[in-house]
Amino acid sequence: MTEPAPETHPQATQAETADTVELLGLVAHLQHVAFSRLAEDARLAPTVAQQLELSRLASAAVDRRDRVLARVVELGGDPELCLGAYARLLEDFDSRTQPSTWWERLLRSYVADGVSDDFCRIAAATVDDRSRALLLEVLDDAEHANLAVAELETAGAQDAVLVSRLALWGRRLVGEALGVVQQAMSAHPALGRLVTRRGADEPASNATPAVAAVPTQPAEAGAMAAPQPPAHLFGELTAEHTRRMSRLGLTA
Amino acid sequence: MTEPAPETHPQATQAETADTVELLGLVAHLQHVAFSRLAEDARLAPTVAQQLELSRLASAAVDRRDRVLARVVELGGDPELCLGAYARLLEDFDSRTQPSTWWERLLRSYVADGVSDDFCRIAAATVDDRSRALLLEVLDDAEHANLAVAELETAGAQDAVLVSRLALWGRRLVGEALGVVQQAMSAHPALGRLVTRRGADEPASNATPAVAAVPTQPAEAGAMAAPQPPAHLFGELTAEHTRRMSRLGLTA
Repeated sequence: MTEPAPETHPQATQAETADTVELLGLVAHLQHVAFSRLAEDARLAPTVAQQLELSRLASAAVDRRDRVLARVVELGGDPELCLGAYARLLEDFDSRTQPSTWWERLLRSYVADGVSDDFCRIAAATVDDRSRALLLEVLDDAEHANLAVAELETAGAQDAVLVSRLALWGRRLVGEALGVVQQAMSAHPALGRLVTRRGADEPASNATPAVAAVPTQPAEAGAMAAPQPPAHLFGELTAEHTRRMSRLGLTA
Repeated sequence: MTEPAPETHPQATQAETADTVELLGLVAHLQHVAFSRLAEDARLAPTVAQQLELSRLASAAVDRRDRVLARVVELGGDPELCLGAYARLLEDFDSRTQPSTWWERLLRSYVADGVSDDFCRIAAATVDDRSRALLLEVLDDAEHANLAVAELETAGAQDAVLVSRLALWGRRLVGEALGVVQQAMSAHPALGRLVTRRGADEPASNATPAVAAVPTQPAEAGAMAAPQPPAHLFGELTAEHTRRMSRLGLTA
């Protein structure tokens, strides 16, 4: 671990810190979910070598989650509350994307983690330096992705039918995953604010201007308005997904 | 971690080393199973605080398993093979002791881990110093036991019916757990040899003499004979179980 960088946003308002804590909660929750899923993968993996590797990845996810929660504490947040706020986020996604084979299971994690990591990276762009450095480090872990790519490539090289079925599965997964992003932003206006703030901070050369913070749906009573996500958010997420699928030789 | 002690059994025969590797494999397997079970517990735990704590325990079990497997490698063994040899050991136990409540689940781990840890400690008594030190350290972890005791005590203090149901459940669990010990020794003669060797090494003042190595069942073709376990083994395991149950205020 590197030394924490000095805080360069000492004037972060209380509201900005609250938004940051909400993003940290999301990333911690996603790591916690990753732990649970990798542990289940380890239980189901066909070989002892895979069981060992997947259980180590599960253990690493616990470590990453706890580092994010430690930052929540530093910012004065409550780790259990901010984690608990996302408890039901992936319920629909999980029940609607039950994999029927080991390959579908691998691809599900690869697609879902890809989209959620990209979203969190985008939202992390405007938080304080220290939180951002931690988040980017945590989100940068590619070990599971590399394992999935290696296994799916090997399997696909021998089986054209599998490749076309997985391409179809990938399209369904990304649709569901983008749906989760939309739900998360609507239930957690802080996430929408972070994403929009990045849009506003971007240089004018950016082709797609940031959309002004006009809520399109009635905000919850008492909650701050959720700004509409910048128009380019979903385009950006989709483009990254397409790039990841082509790593596997799959058409997005 | 402390510095490894120098090897004091430099004359350990190849057969003794093979027996040690087999015990290391068992302990590694039990830690791997503990990881899987704690991860499932974390998923089912009623509060976020418990989810966090149980996932950390799961992660610690991965670490302990990997330290044991590193010792297997040092002794020239194959970690995947020696782990895989126990893959089906707990299948029967698991299917016959499906818990129906969170308390039954907690008590199941408490009883099963207690018996298996005691057995492994006994078998570890005659392996080389370095393996023994590692095993005793790995087996000494009481965090989950303490968590179970705290929760079961709190729950039992308010509910006499629960206490008597759990006492019954505990008796069933210990019977099944002792059955697993018997199966493990019959399928892995090395374990029986280690336990018997400890009996033979014990001072004569020990009330129960070590039973001579007379196989009572036909040994597998080509396998070394499995000595009958010393008569006091099951008495010892049962006594320790009784002590653990009384920590919970339950009659064994």
